[in-house]
Amino acid sequence: MMPADKPWHLQPPEYSEIEAAAVRIAAVCVETPLLESATLNQRLGARLFVKAEGLQRTGSFKLRGAFNRLSQLDAAERARGVVAYSSGNHAQAVAAAAQMIGTHAVIVMPTDAPLAKLAGTRRFGAEIVQYDRYTEDRVAITERLMQQRGLVLVPPFDDRRIIAGAGTLGCELALQLRERDMALDALLVGCGGGGLIAGCATAFAQLSPATAVMAVEPLGFDDTARSLAAGQRLTNDTGARTICDALMVSTPGEVTFEINRRLLSGAVQVSDAEVITAMRVAWDEFRLTVEPGGVVALAAVLNQRISVAGNTIGVVLTGSNIDPKAFSAMIATAGM
Amino acid sequence: MMPADKPWHLQPPEYSEIEAAAVRIAAVCVETPLLESATLNQRLGARLFVKAEGLQRTGSFKLRGAFNRLSQLDAAERARGVVAYSSGNHAQAVAAAAQMIGTHAVIVMPTDAPLAKLAGTRRFGAEIVQYDRYTEDRVAITERLMQQRGLVLVPPFDDRRIIAGAGTLGCELALQLRERDMALDALLVGCGGGGLIAGCATAFAQLSPATAVMAVEPLGFDDTARSLAAGQRLTNDTGARTICDALMVSTPGEVTFEINRRLLSGAVQVSDAEVITAMRVAWDEFRLTVEPGGVVALAAVLNQRISVAGNTIGVVLTGSNIDPKAFSAMIATAGM
Repeated sequence: MMPADKPWHLQPPEYSEIEAAAVRIAAVCVETPLLESATLNQRLGARLFVKAEGLQRTGSFKLRGAFNRLSQLDAAERARGVVAYSSGNHAQAVAAAAQMIGTHAVIVMPTDAPLAKLAGTRRFGAEIVQYDRYTEDRVAITERLMQQRGLVLVPPFDDRRIIAGAGTLGCELALQLRERDMALDALLVGCGGGGLIAGCATAFAQLSPATAVMAVEPLGFDDTARSLAAGQRLTNDTGARTICDALMVSTPGEVTFEINRRLLSGAVQVSDAEVITAMRVAWDEFRLTVEPGGVVALAAVLNQRISVAGNTIGVVLTGSNIDPKAFSAMIATAGM
Repeated sequence: MMPADKPWHLQPPEYSEIEAAAVRIAAVCVETPLLESATLNQRLGARLFVKAEGLQRTGSFKLRGAFNRLSQLDAAERARGVVAYSSGNHAQAVAAAAQMIGTHAVIVMPTDAPLAKLAGTRRFGAEIVQYDRYTEDRVAITERLMQQRGLVLVPPFDDRRIIAGAGTLGCELALQLRERDMALDALLVGCGGGGLIAGCATAFAQLSPATAVMAVEPLGFDDTARSLAAGQRLTNDTGARTICDALMVSTPGEVTFEINRRLLSGAVQVSDAEVITAMRVAWDEFRLTVEPGGVVALAAVLNQRISVAGNTIGVVLTGSNIDPKAFSAMIATAGM
């Protein structure tokens, strides 16, 4: 099934590339903790493990892929710099990775990106080019920058080095579970373009093949669920809206879907209201700050989108980049 | 100097007791992450490592000591149960540890304890007895419960098993630094009764003897600073107030001061305003929820209470148990 004539970077990474990425990122990324709540376990009648990846540097898993990619630039590429488009988490990760390895980063960001993500990107010294998410084409803007300035594109998910970097989270999680003599019945991961879940599924196929890996998407952004069902990449309605800004992707990636169609057990959806409740639960139970797009996997478990009772389940909380005022309003009504 | 005629539990723990405690607690406690912020490092001209212990189960370091103590109860003691007095973090820790090992816990708590701490204690199934912090004597209330019901007292800090348990945080931190080939010039730890810092200082005396270990207290609660200077245990003015509810202790412990007078390099103070700013910085830089008493060590570094520039410094963020409304108000004005 694997098309051998595709460019190298658009072919799925081998498991060994995830291990190599883990070595590259070890000095700059945090081994984020795996947490449990007796209260949640009791309430769900299950064993729930929460991977607190919002504590990663730059506030999301995106640094894993960005640093893995940028650390493989050659000297000439490093001298010219990189360009990326992103609603914010990939932006901050590329900006930070560029600062770490000493190259210039240009980030193409939507005008309605959360202020925390704009500020976070700026403070890592990146140059920001803004565009209107609903009327302008970020890909066209990015390609113009590549042509004009010779910048290297760092795609948010559709690149085997980005996927391999994201997959290091899967390795880390599988090893943390092994230390506890635990194995997951199911692993739930939020899904936008599908890079994180493709990397995690590749890692789990090697390290924990009996675990069902499931994608979680916001309602209205169920392109991966429909694409899995149809066997081909489908696109979301352009009128869809969600508070999960990090997951507003219109269609699965080419490489990521090639991986996900083979390795995922399915995909489920959650509503914005379910996301808000899950954010409160994450703060109540773990004192974790999680952004809307980062909490969808927990929301799916809390709302029994999969069979929960009696099972051992893992969820990844993928990011923590949310504006203080938005988070404050959320927590003010938390349910203690 | 060590009075050999003191009861065993009022003598300082050996380093080996911390190692034994680490084995006992391994299955129930989280290895909390050690975090860094490039922004803070740049701003301080230093290398700052932050131990995010607020992510510990029950939301503070207290579970380390409580579980170490309760797991050493004999069968008869376990059948009768335990009693503890605490403003909240020790309360939750003893309640949770009691639930884990299957014994009954009675907790004596002040009426003005944060709601999050009262609710947290209740949900672990403990029986709560409330008293007025400013007019009633919690020790007398506790002793009556011990006599009437044969309960075993679990003191908040003045017991070698509690100190050894708290010291596991020091071991864990020293090993995390060693993995990074780093050694601290200074370690700053918040200080109420002095149990955590006594345990950490004992661990560091063994594992990193060149590190200066410094206590941080809220203004008005500088009993450890004055006691260190005087060479004897002194008491705070009963009229003092602070938002650091976890550190409102009137005088150093007997065992803890015996350790701290030998091993600490000094003690510094921070104001409530400095604490609030540090809470905002912890959220801005790490998206960590830290309670006021948990953030004093970071506040001391941000306000240059010690020599910062060019040094490698560690701070422990000790707890995260704060009411949602109070935290929400704090974050609403965070400085992004």
